[in-house]
Amino acid sequence: MKEWKDKWVIILGGSSGLGLASAKKLASEGLNICIVHRDRKSYLPAFNEEVKKIESLGVKVKTFNQDALKEETRNGILQSFPKNSVKLLLHSIAKGSLKKMSGTLSEVLTAQDLEISIHAMAISWYEWTQALVQREIFIKNARNIAFTSEGSTRVWPGYGAVSVAKSVLEALMRNMALELAPQQIATNCIQAGTTVTASFMAIPGSIDLAEMAKKRNPFNRLTEAEDVANAVYLLCRPEANWINGTTIKVDGGESLS
Amino acid sequence: MKEWKDKWVIILGGSSGLGLASAKKLASEGLNICIVHRDRKSYLPAFNEEVKKIESLGVKVKTFNQDALKEETRNGILQSFPKNSVKLLLHSIAKGSLKKMSGTLSEVLTAQDLEISIHAMAISWYEWTQALVQREIFIKNARNIAFTSEGSTRVWPGYGAVSVAKSVLEALMRNMALELAPQQIATNCIQAGTTVTASFMAIPGSIDLAEMAKKRNPFNRLTEAEDVANAVYLLCRPEANWINGTTIKVDGGESLS
Amino acid sequence: MKEWKDKWVIILGGSSGLGLASAKKLASEGLNICIVHRDRKSYLPAFNEEVKKIESLGVKVKTFNQDALKEETRNGILQSFPKNSVKLLLHSIAKGSLKKMSGTLSEVLTAQDLEISIHAMAISWYEWTQALVQREIFIKNARNIAFTSEGSTRVWPGYGAVSVAKSVLEALMRNMALELAPQQIATNCIQAGTTVTASFMAIPGSIDLAEMAKKRNPFNRLTEAEDVANAVYLLCRPEANWINGTTIKVDGGESLS
Amino acid sequence: MKEWKDKWVIILGGSSGLGLASAKKLASEGLNICIVHRDRKSYLPAFNEEVKKIESLGVKVKTFNQDALKEETRNGILQSFPKNSVKLLLHSIAKGSLKKMSGTLSEVLTAQDLEISIHAMAISWYEWTQALVQREIFIKNARNIAFTSEGSTRVWPGYGAVSVAKSVLEALMRNMALELAPQQIATNCIQAGTTVTASFMAIPGSIDLAEMAKKRNPFNRLTEAEDVANAVYLLCRPEANWINGTTIKVDGGESLS
Repeated sequence: MKEWKDKWVIILGGSSGLGLASAKKLASEGLNICIVHRDRKSYLPAFNEEVKKIESLGVKVKTFNQDALKEETRNGILQSFPKNSVKLLLHSIAKGSLKKMSGTLSEVLTAQDLEISIHAMAISWYEWTQALVQREIFIKNARNIAFTSEGSTRVWPGYGAVSVAKSVLEALMRNMALELAPQQIATNCIQAGTTVTASFMAIPGSIDLAEMAKKRNPFNRLTEAEDVANAVYLLCRPEANWINGTTIKVDGGESLS
Repeated sequence: MKEWKDKWVIILGGSSGLGLASAKKLASEGLNICIVHRDRKSYLPAFNEEVKKIESLGVKVKTFNQDALKEETRNGILQSFPKNSVKLLLHSIAKGSLKKMSGTLSEVLTAQDLEISIHAMAISWYEWTQALVQREIFIKNARNIAFTSEGSTRVWPGYGAVSVAKSVLEALMRNMALELAPQQIATNCIQAGTTVTASFMAIPGSIDLAEMAKKRNPFNRLTEAEDVANAVYLLCRPEANWINGTTIKVDGGESLS
Repeated sequence: MKEWKDKWVIILGGSSGLGLASAKKLASEGLNICIVHRDRKSYLPAFNEEVKKIESLGVKVKTFNQDALKEETRNGILQSFPKNSVKLLLHSIAKGSLKKMSGTLSEVLTAQDLEISIHAMAISWYEWTQALVQREIFIKNARNIAFTSEGSTRVWPGYGAVSVAKSVLEALMRNMALELAPQQIATNCIQAGTTVTASFMAIPGSIDLAEMAKKRNPFNRLTEAEDVANAVYLLCRPEANWINGTTIKVDGGESLS
Repeated sequence: MKEWKDKWVIILGGSSGLGLASAKKLASEGLNICIVHRDRKSYLPAFNEEVKKIESLGVKVKTFNQDALKEETRNGILQSFPKNSVKLLLHSIAKGSLKKMSGTLSEVLTAQDLEISIHAMAISWYEWTQALVQREIFIKNARNIAFTSEGSTRVWPGYGAVSVAKSVLEALMRNMALELAPQQIATNCIQAGTTVTASFMAIPGSIDLAEMAKKRNPFNRLTEAEDVANAVYLLCRPEANWINGTTIKVDGGESLS
């Protein structure tokens, strides 16, 4: 797409899963990619392979293996972006406590667990958005997208912190959609179906969960990261300028039943 | 799009408003257009001009000035479609009673008013869908889309029948999304913002309504038929194959507040 | 309750399940009971036993073994009610098609199946309400309540007609709540959890469904008809005058997950 | 109610508005009242009058003019409660930032503003709940209730922090309803309509807001604190044991349109 030439996407949590798949899809359509991630040394060779693939699509790639939740990371990275250079800010940070709300004092979900999850999975999106807005880094008709999940409305034992954080994410989305529209920024969430990503596999019992999700899906398969990346791409197209303030489910219908 | 060559879109209620705008957008991307409409003679010259514009995009156009709510219309039209020929069925029929639920017996909304509105605005979508499914007219990765409105969940005096019909539409969407997925049909609704169409202008007080909707919209303008047509197009693209069973708001954020 | 003395409850579908349990609870609080039901001869001895129990609570009971969906039934029954005599109209009619949306033409859910289910399970409520309103039979601070289910938003194969009908029910509730408030009628729905009633047991696979619902319920038991009847009673109390236009879930939390 | 004899209600934010009205209603039904509040000296004489009225109903009253958001307050107060002594924990703390999401760096809503609002208006509820659970202070069939508002789903400029905090409140409610049910605690939210309380009047433009809310209400009056207190009472009655995990609107239908 012509209007995307020399424009950037900033992906928070983009070294794997939904973030990385989105990076690839958007790069293949000509957008430059900036990935902020947090990975151990052992993962870097694999990640660098992915980066090379993205670069081979003919776009520029910057990566920062730094903590996206810190102000200094944000300030450091954003000073390299000129005004009117970013088409999309994509938030894909999954880092929530999996403690339960019942149990002994030492094992039960605390207020602090909640606050850390809310900050990582939701408020950090708002912080980055404000930082881009204040620096006028977004282009006209920019996009601001975050990934939510069915957990924002349905609940399971042990997912309290994630559920709460996703609720915050969607509430922030609605409010940013309203208040940032005058600056020509469209803000939305994508509710992805169950996808077998690294963060998903870290959940206890994830194999059973995946099996159930597959059975429940009317298409009888799981969501793939590429399905979700495709939706990010659609929301970036000019035909989506008027889609603002909504959560789009990209799950094949998994959440219907 | 290559895979769309020689494929058809059937639009119920496609001679103006959201339906016609969608016809134009999809024709410009190479899809043949079949419009089923119900218009008076006086509108036909204007409509024929529109048809010529669509044809000039290099696609085939069929139009039927017949009652889309009748079985014989459906049977007659569909017998001209071979198997595997239709990419999209688009329902855009707006024909609901505007009577109130309070008042004297002679003026109050009746069960029959409700049933006629439900049939026209919702069940007719299901009837056409089933007719296409039974005749195997849908292609693989087909789309089935209908237009809903905020009225499905918010209520105003005099909009009871429309509100009920839109609820039926969305419930049918969810059920068809679930039950027709195995046939590779993705079913969704688009919730359009306030758009100044002929059917909208027929509503008493519509000028005031439009003024209020504009003020309420975070982008400070009304929804245009083209905004909605763009979303129909996005949902038809292959990247939307996994979007199934959801209502996508296309209103710039109007419904947020 | 003093203000309920000599006042009536009309229960559509009150010979078993949620309707009958509500009849008993409200009778025990001093309201007269009118039950409109449709039962075979073989059930009548058991039903008559229940009627005697209700009468033994010191209230009047009328029963009509007639088709509540017919206008003549409605007219016949309502002519026996004077103005300002009915505190509550309770709709508890469960009669929906269980056909699927996919299959051969002869077995697939038809438009007519949908319309019959919508009329029985939803529009009949509106017809009775209007009949009471036109005849001024409701007292001040009357209640108008219907039973909905999770099926209004979640879907399963074979439940399309029920799902659609429950959506209509809730949309009618919202509109009646808005338009009938000036006549001091509060209209609400109660979303009951899975309850082992006669109509539930008629569903194929109901025993498995009940087992799953029990496991899913955070209290680890099914909903009982008395739980729901208790909520009907709470909504009738004067403290509930300001609850209007909402769906109250009475399921112990079953629908959360 | 007999089973309430010698049992307590703890109200966080109970010196005025919805909290105080609830205190009065519940005291009139025989429950002892503990109010945690934060007021200036100038308000105390008026508050002490209210306390006397409550005591005159024949129940015990404890009040603590301390910061309910601090752990030491919580610990101090709860050590005076024996096991199995509290029927209801009622959260009525309204303390959210009213900053906008657009504007200059110095005036715009910050992450810290969000976090403070979320803690005060939502997470503090969870902290108190856990403190009562860990100390086994709740009785069997206890209630855990918080007040939410339409702002949890609808948005207005300047209400971002409140909107987010109310989303957290409702997500916490759903999760606590699920995870604390095995301990026989029913957790719900009440969504009150626009009520002219001290915190409401502190909002800029509140007089206009109240006027609009009155017009929009189908009963053509505002919500009163007593309407909401009545609903708190209904939820405490034994007939509400099975209502768990839901948000009950108590607004006369204001939020319908």
